[in-house]
Amino acid sequence: MNNPWKILSTKTVYQNPWIRVREDAVITPEGKNGIYGVIESKDSVIVGALNDKNEIYLIYSFSYPAQSWQWELPGGGSDGEDILEASKRELAEETGIVAKEWIELPRTRVCDGLMTEKTATLLARDIEINTKIASEDSGVIEKGQFFSFDEVGQMVDKGEIDEGQSITALYLIERWLIKNKLI
Amino acid sequence: MNNPWKILSTKTVYQNPWIRVREDAVITPEGKNGIYGVIESKDSVIVGALNDKNEIYLIYSFSYPAQSWQWELPGGGSDGEDILEASKRELAEETGIVAKEWIELPRTRVCDGLMTEKTATLLARDIEINTKIASEDSGVIEKGQFFSFDEVGQMVDKGEIDEGQSITALYLIERWLIKNKLI
Repeated sequence: MNNPWKILSTKTVYQNPWIRVREDAVITPEGKNGIYGVIESKDSVIVGALNDKNEIYLIYSFSYPAQSWQWELPGGGSDGEDILEASKRELAEETGIVAKEWIELPRTRVCDGLMTEKTATLLARDIEINTKIASEDSGVIEKGQFFSFDEVGQMVDKGEIDEGQSITALYLIERWLIKNKLI
Repeated sequence: MNNPWKILSTKTVYQNPWIRVREDAVITPEGKNGIYGVIESKDSVIVGALNDKNEIYLIYSFSYPAQSWQWELPGGGSDGEDILEASKRELAEETGIVAKEWIELPRTRVCDGLMTEKTATLLARDIEINTKIASEDSGVIEKGQFFSFDEVGQMVDKGEIDEGQSITALYLIERWLIKNKLI
């Protein structure tokens, strides 16, 4: 299939250290002149840290855009570094967890209508917790704990977990655990 | 818990008919002066249309930000209208499907670090397909078909479905079907 859009020109309309917003002048699929605004950001990582009961570690952290606290998986921007290194750094900073085994699951796109960002979901297994290395103690993460996948599913049903990137990662991780007969 | 951020001021730095980008001047959780860029957009809907075998309808459509074709669930922006009306409109436009039974599942947030957008996931059951009413024939949707949840899971594993909002919706829908002993 052909690309149904024709891009005539592009310009940056806003930029900060984390995102660039560009506006493209386009011919739409209907053949009209139009614009399309796209948000570009560095790819992100999200980490499912599993204990020996195959429970998963969630953090209770503050979302600035939502201005509210939420349960979610650890993760963040890759800062352009290697995905595995970014995952190790984010997990250690946010939880104090270090892991001997790392498994990368398929990459996903965050918001296909507006953003270019992709997320890498990584499984961290054979873990140890050393809270002394958790450096992100500036008040954006209030607590963290392990939950079984039954508990996590119930939290999603109740809206207690409502963060889409975390739910996408949970889908991937749960499939991996079921395929490997671990839950 | 308190809000770890302090918002000093806010300004719109870019706006088009679909998104507004604002930049807030803040005191960060570390106590420093900084900025936070937030993308605001209307809430969106995503629809899981199920046939009488509890297979789900996916469309093969073009993502402008990714500049590629993908399998995903039907849906789109709400245009500020009622969530159920938006869901009926998007489903009819994109697939020609009309449904007698509609069930709303928990709302989720698309990108908790950058966006305010929430997505409503709706189940559409007791359906009929009338391709004559599918008006979105401008080349952004190439085809559509029903898939079993086994097939959908395998497509996610292979990266053939990699769109996070669709995968989040699949998680919610699959849980609903399992709870209701339908798959």
